[in-house]
Amino acid sequence: MSTSVLRTADAWWVLTDAGAVRIDTSATTTAELLGDAEEIDAALHGGDAVDPDSLTLVSPVTAPCRVVAQMTNYASHVRDAGLNPDSIPLTFFRKASGSISGPYADIVSPAHVTCLDHEVEIGLVIAREVPVGTDVTPENWASFVAGVVITNDVSARDVQLPKTQFYESKSYPTFTPVGPALVLLTDDELKRFGDLRLRLWVNGELRQDSVVDGDMLYPPLDALRALSRFQRLDAGDLLLTGTPVGTALSAPPKPVELIASLLPTATKWRLFFKAQSKNLKYLRDGDVVELAIGTDDGALDLGRQRTVVRRA
Amino acid sequence: MSTSVLRTADAWWVLTDAGAVRIDTSATTTAELLGDAEEIDAALHGGDAVDPDSLTLVSPVTAPCRVVAQMTNYASHVRDAGLNPDSIPLTFFRKASGSISGPYADIVSPAHVTCLDHEVEIGLVIAREVPVGTDVTPENWASFVAGVVITNDVSARDVQLPKTQFYESKSYPTFTPVGPALVLLTDDELKRFGDLRLRLWVNGELRQDSVVDGDMLYPPLDALRALSRFQRLDAGDLLLTGTPVGTALSAPPKPVELIASLLPTATKWRLFFKAQSKNLKYLRDGDVVELAIGTDDGALDLGRQRTVVRRA
Repeated sequence: MSTSVLRTADAWWVLTDAGAVRIDTSATTTAELLGDAEEIDAALHGGDAVDPDSLTLVSPVTAPCRVVAQMTNYASHVRDAGLNPDSIPLTFFRKASGSISGPYADIVSPAHVTCLDHEVEIGLVIAREVPVGTDVTPENWASFVAGVVITNDVSARDVQLPKTQFYESKSYPTFTPVGPALVLLTDDELKRFGDLRLRLWVNGELRQDSVVDGDMLYPPLDALRALSRFQRLDAGDLLLTGTPVGTALSAPPKPVELIASLLPTATKWRLFFKAQSKNLKYLRDGDVVELAIGTDDGALDLGRQRTVVRRA
Repeated sequence: MSTSVLRTADAWWVLTDAGAVRIDTSATTTAELLGDAEEIDAALHGGDAVDPDSLTLVSPVTAPCRVVAQMTNYASHVRDAGLNPDSIPLTFFRKASGSISGPYADIVSPAHVTCLDHEVEIGLVIAREVPVGTDVTPENWASFVAGVVITNDVSARDVQLPKTQFYESKSYPTFTPVGPALVLLTDDELKRFGDLRLRLWVNGELRQDSVVDGDMLYPPLDALRALSRFQRLDAGDLLLTGTPVGTALSAPPKPVELIASLLPTATKWRLFFKAQSKNLKYLRDGDVVELAIGTDDGALDLGRQRTVVRRA
């Protein structure tokens, strides 16, 4: 039975059948909260319950922390980007943790951004220190994962593509809505990871809808193994595991791309974004973006995130 | 008169005419040390001096901190990479701060890395918090910079190029040697930034030798302005400002590149790295890499870094 942790500005809560019960903890960071297993357990088994809808939730993952993200990690998304899934190496980039915002907070688009896009992703929250050189194995990988959380890897495509490095385009404040629930999982529960279905709607229209198994290229075992080869992780760090097909950005067909590669860079991007300006799928002021992740049988349920886009 | 700060495992020092004088501080991080201006000043004007060569120096920039780096920021390096300097946007990526190592520490190349390369860069150390939305101007930019330091942005080209995102290839432990000196500069002294000459030698052979002015595309004013648009910085954070021409990696001529773009990705990279394996400029076990940065008139002198390459 998984445990859903919620956070408000000054408290942590667990979801029970009776409602949300406050955890008796002085933790101010996710890492500290993860150390309070006894207090979490006590709240699960007693305490006054309140209606969770009465709480003003913030992200259950606190900043600062490391936010590491996997590039193009679903075959469906890779094909949609005009690439061959077999040719995609396991690749990471960073997001600034200042981009983390709450599950119902506005996504604020800077005035200069013209192609604002969404990416529903499963966020893995790290349970404990993973030093460089750690031997991550099929047997122990789950012990490094505290739980999972809904994340939206919001992306300014007009910044991302010409710059080639993804860092800035995905790091503006509010570009990583997280939550509502940090769902803590036992090693056994994590075995259901492959059954998780990711869905994202814009103004009620279903845009992304995929199940991990059969689509994800590099599952958490591979990702943690690769990360431990070059960087340390700590409790409370956040790993975004990639997004499936259905973002607003869709690559031009291969022949168009090859002809474009012969143009000077500035010209190529001018033509590309001129064409993209007719793409009505990019996010606009007032758009409502909803995300849900869970298994179809309801055994794992990460809740539902609901954010509204605002132009700065 | 600039102030050169050194660090050993358990102390901080300033360079004086008489030698290195210990600073009376309990600071354990660069950010804390920067808050001890009075103690730094006191050490400059008195105290027992020791021979700086008798000290075992570590990086004067402590981890964890944000390490942000500018991509292709020198016209000479951009042209050498087969690109047009006019087409290069101001672009950032992150390095893991676990990659920071001392000015005389070994550069440890992971066993799987085949194309290990060097990049001498001026590191800017941030003086104080720069919140998102800060108005960075020609008048105030220097107030956000505590000083400058020699850095080597060590890069595994065989990891960097196929993955396209630079993060992993530049984040292995020891891939950011820093120091020896953190040279604290007044706003007036920072005006000499453009006169800094960057040099790097491998086994005594001069490989990189350029002056900032006339070669750097986006100076610190532009970089800080762009960063403050999307991410917060804090005291002790490190910004690497790019490298000039002279790295081992040199791009193939344009026609070769265009033909290669028609090949399947895996084939293209196999052929590319087969050709690169004949490039004798990549770093090998036992290579001695030395870096120096300063103005030609000696008014600013960041010292000399000396590291040795070791295969893991």
